[in-house]
Amino acid sequence: MSSNSTPRVVVIGAGFGGLNAARALARENVQITIVDRKNHHTFQPLLYQVATAGLSPGEIAAPIRAVFRGDKDVVSLLAEVQDFDLTRRVVKTSEQELPYDYLVVAAGATHAYFGHDEWAPYAPGLKTIEDALEIRRRVLLAFELAERQAVSGGAHEPLNFVVVGAGPTGVELAGTLAEITHHVLAHEFHSIDPRSAHILLLEGGPRVLAVYPEDLSRSAEEQLRRLGVDVRTNTMVTQIEPGAVRFGETRVVAPVILWAAGVAASPLGKKLGVPCDRAGRVFVQPDLSLPGHPEVFVIGDLATLKDENGKMLPGVAPAAIQQGKFVAKTIHRDLRSEPRQNFKYWDKGSLATIGRAAAVAQFGKIHISGFIAWLSWLFIHIFFLIGFRNRLLVFIQWAWSYVTYERGARLITGSNDLPGWSGTHPTQIPAEEELRRKSA
Amino acid sequence: MSSNSTPRVVVIGAGFGGLNAARALARENVQITIVDRKNHHTFQPLLYQVATAGLSPGEIAAPIRAVFRGDKDVVSLLAEVQDFDLTRRVVKTSEQELPYDYLVVAAGATHAYFGHDEWAPYAPGLKTIEDALEIRRRVLLAFELAERQAVSGGAHEPLNFVVVGAGPTGVELAGTLAEITHHVLAHEFHSIDPRSAHILLLEGGPRVLAVYPEDLSRSAEEQLRRLGVDVRTNTMVTQIEPGAVRFGETRVVAPVILWAAGVAASPLGKKLGVPCDRAGRVFVQPDLSLPGHPEVFVIGDLATLKDENGKMLPGVAPAAIQQGKFVAKTIHRDLRSEPRQNFKYWDKGSLATIGRAAAVAQFGKIHISGFIAWLSWLFIHIFFLIGFRNRLLVFIQWAWSYVTYERGARLITGSNDLPGWSGTHPTQIPAEEELRRKSA
Repeated sequence: MSSNSTPRVVVIGAGFGGLNAARALARENVQITIVDRKNHHTFQPLLYQVATAGLSPGEIAAPIRAVFRGDKDVVSLLAEVQDFDLTRRVVKTSEQELPYDYLVVAAGATHAYFGHDEWAPYAPGLKTIEDALEIRRRVLLAFELAERQAVSGGAHEPLNFVVVGAGPTGVELAGTLAEITHHVLAHEFHSIDPRSAHILLLEGGPRVLAVYPEDLSRSAEEQLRRLGVDVRTNTMVTQIEPGAVRFGETRVVAPVILWAAGVAASPLGKKLGVPCDRAGRVFVQPDLSLPGHPEVFVIGDLATLKDENGKMLPGVAPAAIQQGKFVAKTIHRDLRSEPRQNFKYWDKGSLATIGRAAAVAQFGKIHISGFIAWLSWLFIHIFFLIGFRNRLLVFIQWAWSYVTYERGARLITGSNDLPGWSGTHPTQIPAEEELRRKSA
Repeated sequence: MSSNSTPRVVVIGAGFGGLNAARALARENVQITIVDRKNHHTFQPLLYQVATAGLSPGEIAAPIRAVFRGDKDVVSLLAEVQDFDLTRRVVKTSEQELPYDYLVVAAGATHAYFGHDEWAPYAPGLKTIEDALEIRRRVLLAFELAERQAVSGGAHEPLNFVVVGAGPTGVELAGTLAEITHHVLAHEFHSIDPRSAHILLLEGGPRVLAVYPEDLSRSAEEQLRRLGVDVRTNTMVTQIEPGAVRFGETRVVAPVILWAAGVAASPLGKKLGVPCDRAGRVFVQPDLSLPGHPEVFVIGDLATLKDENGKMLPGVAPAAIQQGKFVAKTIHRDLRSEPRQNFKYWDKGSLATIGRAAAVAQFGKIHISGFIAWLSWLFIHIFFLIGFRNRLLVFIQWAWSYVTYERGARLITGSNDLPGWSGTHPTQIPAEEELRRKSA
């Protein structure tokens, strides 16, 4: 550390981990620079609400600069980090070098296609505001294009919506899609019946929400079925093409295919020069520092660490938040020459929402399903939203849509095309064909 | 008209004119098809609030389908009209033909670059939600990129914002830009001073808000200057290039250039086979029908008509709304074999907003400026917003930003590039150079 001046801390990423590290550090006598490729923090747990037209982007995102308005020692920088020089202690962006005394790398994760990046344009994932707007565009557009086909008489392409992966994001997306097709859109079309939409949730493993206890997985699957979702477990997708998915011997034509199956850590992890796991996550020390570099911390979805029971830390917001705060505390102790401590994750419980009044929750040994779980989810999420105004607006939006079944943000912006959509008048296309039968 | 069946009315465009025609017709015994390229009605008078990050797109737009939820006889169609066959009485879209007994063409206007379409990428105009988001992106990004340059020490490119055209849209944009640079962003940057931003409003004519009485023009210019806007009248732009504007012998480097100078009617007007004025507006009969085609109406910004005093109808929302309702009434009278009447515009007054508590208003002979004009503007605009929920949310947003000087929708989505932005560390670039001096 440059001994005569205020220590410089560079934080990379303004997700839950980075934001909380910078917030806690703002109280210390340090100079903080927080770097992100976006100008806003995204409240990721509610991204699916933007993707399904329930909330507007501005309601779940806060400008990083506005979050630190009162903190004179926090510089917010819109930039993309390219590399590190751990010896010279600088972060390299495309425009400049940022020297640091402490570095906090919280660059997060993105969705991964298991070596099939060519599927990305046909099956968008959900990690950013832009992703959510693209999914919203496709979902709403599918109904519009089907109506347009049907208005001139005759058949329309099947309204299949395929969600790949039944983790929390896949379950939220499938549940909410079922909800809007059966309630919100049901009475607004004249030539198609939105309730005929078929929502398929494909999961490679044996159960949905695999990280939850088995009874809650079963409950979640039951709640999904009640909402009208066609849940297929043990179903591995083998091919995605424009407007169609293949699994086993089946090919399903679907104007909307969403990817919620895999995540990979930010490629920045690999640039730190230490071992990473298969998903690209950095193995960190018990104090979350980089092996051999006590001045560098890696936190959130980019880090991997086992707790004392050998259990991996989950890649969820509360873990990232706690890690961010812990790193700030560690730097605080360093500056006072106090010994470092090990990070301990405090598991406050898990919540996954499925749809209107449908959710599962685990608080220690207590397992809850249905309305009460959903209410807990609702209040916890509104409570943790950045900024009071956003909380208020989100609450009004939700109260309104709960009572009226309306959704506030149903805008299609951008192009009016869907990948694989024929645009011509199809003869009745089979929604699902058995490839075996066809080739026989 | 096909005598045995319910008359079919096709309405093209879901702006103020088309939407109001369809709404009023929904009460008649007719089948209505409303066709638009977008799935939403846009409340255009508030687009500048989206462009300047005050409101979210969802707050000023309503899905057309949702507007007609209760009207079983209104079919809403997302499609682009290509042509008409007035003899066969069909509208041609890229996918289908729509037969009609009555046709209402309300396709509106877009911005025009006076034969310089190549300026469009460097100086976006403001007509759609997409336009507004692009302007918002550029405005917010300019500050972020300047901060990034300044953080690594040295100069940053000049924060010039040029608005071309001082009609209502140009005045709103310039005034609101001045407001956000001086208040909202003032204390959030560390290495630049947003208050050093220079907002130039360039107007080719001798005064701002030329359609208003002279005393209100003077008042508007005075209010703009008080907000810090550099107003230059009698200033004709001769060239726009990536990141720079030329007028007379001057070249101004500007990361953000906005076009609010000209409008042209939709190209659909020319496809109706009757005379149009220079801006492409269709000359209509006193009953708003097409000469020789009493079953075809053209309304809103696409039509041109002189009132009994030889005064042109203004291209404003109230005129389009009244025309839409008038056409519905005319069809109603036709169906009852009552004689047609001539359209009469009821001028309820004009309002233009300039910024926080700054506006001008004319109600007949009463001219108002400043806070009271602004309050009238505020309540009239909130009152006319489509949908109760939107009204409530907009009201909360405004109350919040009035008290706190915050703006709720400051997200940069999409690319992090600006046209003409060098990205390198400039030596001090002169904000404005006299070309004459340079060539001397």
